[in-house]
Amino acid sequence: MNARKLLLLAVVVAASRGLAQPPPLDTLVSPEVRPDRSVTFRVRAPKATLVTLFGAWMPLGTQEPMSKDADGIWSVTVGPLAPNGYLYTFTVDGVTVADPVNPDVKLRQRTSASLLEIPATPPAPWEVRDVPHGSVEVNWLKSKVLDSSTRQVFVYLPPGYDRSTARYPVLYLLHGSGDVAASWTQAGKANLILDSLIAEKKAVPMIVVMPLGHAVPFGSAPALQAKNTPLFEEYLYKEIIPWVDARYRTAPGRENHAIAGLSMGGGQSSNIGFAHLDDFSAIGIFSSSGGPEFANRFKEQLADPKGTNARLNVFWIGIGRQDAGYERSKQFSEMLTRNQIRHTFHETGGGHVWAVWRWALSEFTPLLFHR
Amino acid sequence: MNARKLLLLAVVVAASRGLAQPPPLDTLVSPEVRPDRSVTFRVRAPKATLVTLFGAWMPLGTQEPMSKDADGIWSVTVGPLAPNGYLYTFTVDGVTVADPVNPDVKLRQRTSASLLEIPATPPAPWEVRDVPHGSVEVNWLKSKVLDSSTRQVFVYLPPGYDRSTARYPVLYLLHGSGDVAASWTQAGKANLILDSLIAEKKAVPMIVVMPLGHAVPFGSAPALQAKNTPLFEEYLYKEIIPWVDARYRTAPGRENHAIAGLSMGGGQSSNIGFAHLDDFSAIGIFSSSGGPEFANRFKEQLADPKGTNARLNVFWIGIGRQDAGYERSKQFSEMLTRNQIRHTFHETGGGHVWAVWRWALSEFTPLLFHR
Repeated sequence: MNARKLLLLAVVVAASRGLAQPPPLDTLVSPEVRPDRSVTFRVRAPKATLVTLFGAWMPLGTQEPMSKDADGIWSVTVGPLAPNGYLYTFTVDGVTVADPVNPDVKLRQRTSASLLEIPATPPAPWEVRDVPHGSVEVNWLKSKVLDSSTRQVFVYLPPGYDRSTARYPVLYLLHGSGDVAASWTQAGKANLILDSLIAEKKAVPMIVVMPLGHAVPFGSAPALQAKNTPLFEEYLYKEIIPWVDARYRTAPGRENHAIAGLSMGGGQSSNIGFAHLDDFSAIGIFSSSGGPEFANRFKEQLADPKGTNARLNVFWIGIGRQDAGYERSKQFSEMLTRNQIRHTFHETGGGHVWAVWRWALSEFTPLLFHR
Repeated sequence: MNARKLLLLAVVVAASRGLAQPPPLDTLVSPEVRPDRSVTFRVRAPKATLVTLFGAWMPLGTQEPMSKDADGIWSVTVGPLAPNGYLYTFTVDGVTVADPVNPDVKLRQRTSASLLEIPATPPAPWEVRDVPHGSVEVNWLKSKVLDSSTRQVFVYLPPGYDRSTARYPVLYLLHGSGDVAASWTQAGKANLILDSLIAEKKAVPMIVVMPLGHAVPFGSAPALQAKNTPLFEEYLYKEIIPWVDARYRTAPGRENHAIAGLSMGGGQSSNIGFAHLDDFSAIGIFSSSGGPEFANRFKEQLADPKGTNARLNVFWIGIGRQDAGYERSKQFSEMLTRNQIRHTFHETGGGHVWAVWRWALSEFTPLLFHR
């Protein structure tokens, strides 16, 4: 029998009813989050011989085995987990996939993962609260600096922006390697975090600009990849910042500009921020450091702590203790301390994960733009 | 051995290098689109015994068998395919999943699929062209009408909106069952279609409002599901339209309001449009019809073709010939014709798929708002 011509019963039924829809969906529930914050994951795979779970709350490289019931549904219950958001995947006989029935898929440069959300009581800043919400504007900008490609730029506008004539300070917020321009809002909930903090008057209303941080294609050979940060810096300076200042009601001057990022974006933020202390008064580095060239590139700034400190209102470094880059980040902080560069170093539980980056953004943004 | 404590070599390597990243990604390429528009799909599944492909260009319910090479990579080459966008999935030993390495995942209410894009020469309206681009603003609105939930509303603003003081006509554009508020932009490329048509002066600059069409939860029991369209109508009228008119520079009056949708959204558009001919002058129904209650609900409007036609500047119905709802949509058109209700019925190749809806939007929007 030719599988191309195999017509399933469901289609015959659908056609006979004049339905345009496929047959009823599998009603399997996954993930199931219980009030005690334990979570059951399920996947229907009757023919599989080994199914495992990996979640962002687990040590990198470990797998949680799942077990099969008589209906061929594999499941495992974990937790209770701390309230936050976590990426997870299933590995079904060696094939790693997002949860087939969970619609909350994390978009990224390559491969997929699912998002699990554990709500807190009262709700965490990254949850949808009953507060005024800002908007997120997605723009498509053709870049002359970068290979003529058209790239998305996500921009958070705080509640009331559309009814105001005020000018707002701007945070440039950069994602990690493998992410997309949507990542800080989709997985990081940056807009909801700002909504919550602004409603509680913990943060001042600000514009948050989230461009695509991959100036060269993700997965490029190391020689090309090494050009990513300098090329991104050129892209940011020649195209993004002028476009932001032309399109939005931004407040001028270094006191109104901050730059922060996670992982790869943290390296970009430390390098771009230090190279442009006349333009940025605040730098945030989440789960990252300055990179191996930092001390060499910024000899002058490190040799002049008085001048550098006078221009850095906020210099915040935060990382999870289980992050493989923890020691490197700590050493970066110690190098800054040796050079008397004023900054704060914060640590929390967790690895190289979105739970840490939501925490970091929630801690960092309240420090910004106080005059 | 306890798999929870199993530490893979990759992690040891990553940790020894001080890397915060997982090991290098699989370099498998899927889908590979060739210049002749043939496409090779690949999935690495060495332990699987049966792997098949389903794509939106295939008849519903059929499967394309894939074959395994010595490295455990399953592949199949199809096409050439007509330039457009197509959803597809793999079924690996009975588990249906999105392509594990394709980052273009279609977000929906439940389950995932991947998106394949076949470019055209010259580029189709739904591709990223070298034209001025509008923006898409994502809003989070708490609904009082609908269970106090906070819902996304996507709004397309045409190029130049931000630098203008003009008022713009508005198209309310509704998605299908199982979709999310992002669907018309993510899979339908509604913003790129409008960008292209506006640049070519085929369509007038307009605002496009794309709310979430699931007023009751997706997958609700039939009794509750039956309330979806009336509840959505209430939500649209009491909350969305007043909010749109307050937030955006909309042009007033029925001549400046259109409503259109696909599948479930087509049913909503025909019902809401006919119920409010004083508010809407144009209706678009893509791959759908008026539903079984239409003739009964709109007896008055059908009995008064002169009055109804005078208020319907544009009434456009479009569907694919391979759509399971084709006959029903055609019968709907014939019923309208019997009642002398002026409209146009258009058909194209294809089934109940995004390729048809991109075509429909590209045909429908040029007809709107000519005065």
